[in-house]
Amino acid sequence: MGWFSKDIQTMDDLFVHTLRDIYYAENKITKALPGMIEKATDSKLRAGFAEHLKETEGHVRRLDEVFRLHGVESGGVNCPAIDGIIEEAADVSSEVADKQVLDAALIAAAQAVEHYEMTRYGTLVAWAKELGRPDCASLLQANLDEEKATDMRLTKIAESRVNANAAA
Amino acid sequence: MGWFSKDIQTMDDLFVHTLRDIYYAENKITKALPGMIEKATDSKLRAGFAEHLKETEGHVRRLDEVFRLHGVESGGVNCPAIDGIIEEAADVSSEVADKQVLDAALIAAAQAVEHYEMTRYGTLVAWAKELGRPDCASLLQANLDEEKATDMRLTKIAESRVNANAAA
Repeated sequence: MGWFSKDIQTMDDLFVHTLRDIYYAENKITKALPGMIEKATDSKLRAGFAEHLKETEGHVRRLDEVFRLHGVESGGVNCPAIDGIIEEAADVSSEVADKQVLDAALIAAAQAVEHYEMTRYGTLVAWAKELGRPDCASLLQANLDEEKATDMRLTKIAESRVNANAAA
Repeated sequence: MGWFSKDIQTMDDLFVHTLRDIYYAENKITKALPGMIEKATDSKLRAGFAEHLKETEGHVRRLDEVFRLHGVESGGVNCPAIDGIIEEAADVSSEVADKQVLDAALIAAAQAVEHYEMTRYGTLVAWAKELGRPDCASLLQANLDEEKATDMRLTKIAESRVNANAAA
């Protein structure tokens, strides 16, 4: 089953369905991050993943609040995109032997996750405004801002990894 | 099969494998875009998708050149992430009845594709530089710049769609 189903007739239906898509994704990410923390060797990367796990739990709570404000039940729908992205992230945990290479691959996998979330939250913020729900939009924007900050933090960790290797 | 396999031991292996991931993705996108062009009703959106199809064909050619410069054979590897994202994009083509809602959903699906490509190209540019391949990095940067421009163009089309609906 894909992201869309035949009961999507209005922008409101599409908004709620996409909320459920990212709700499923955030919950899946909370399950995937502990394994990534365990595998990462760079201390900054481990700390960054651990911090993002806490943030992700907060994102789920904000989404619960968006569902409540919008008067619909919290819940997820299957999201083949995040399933695929996380499948790739999980593979790297078990398939790359060299620790430096593993950290680089984990950062890339995490950034793919962040970009998926950024695009969905960007869309949801726009649709919440379109539907006259600034209250929902501001909660979704808060999640979006944290995903962007995480992506930038991962880029900095990647750069420091490269510089450390160059100096070694 | 996921993104990584046990033969990834070095940063060079990881770079080539990720090149193959995005090569598969770009080829898959060239096959998906004609269906999206056909379904879109907004003339700017149709034109935008058509322009991006030409660009995507150019991205494949640039990737062929990166493979050539790096001395490895062109080719793809399975990429469950883009498969999932495109599965969602294809579903919307057939499952949403209302044309306004369909256009909104198509834009969101296309932006998810763009964000996936942006994160992979961002990573590949950094790794090409790390590996001392500025020639490859500049070709990958050209693809990245076009993906970013397409994403911004899609945001503008989405905004004009909302404004047109508000004025209707």
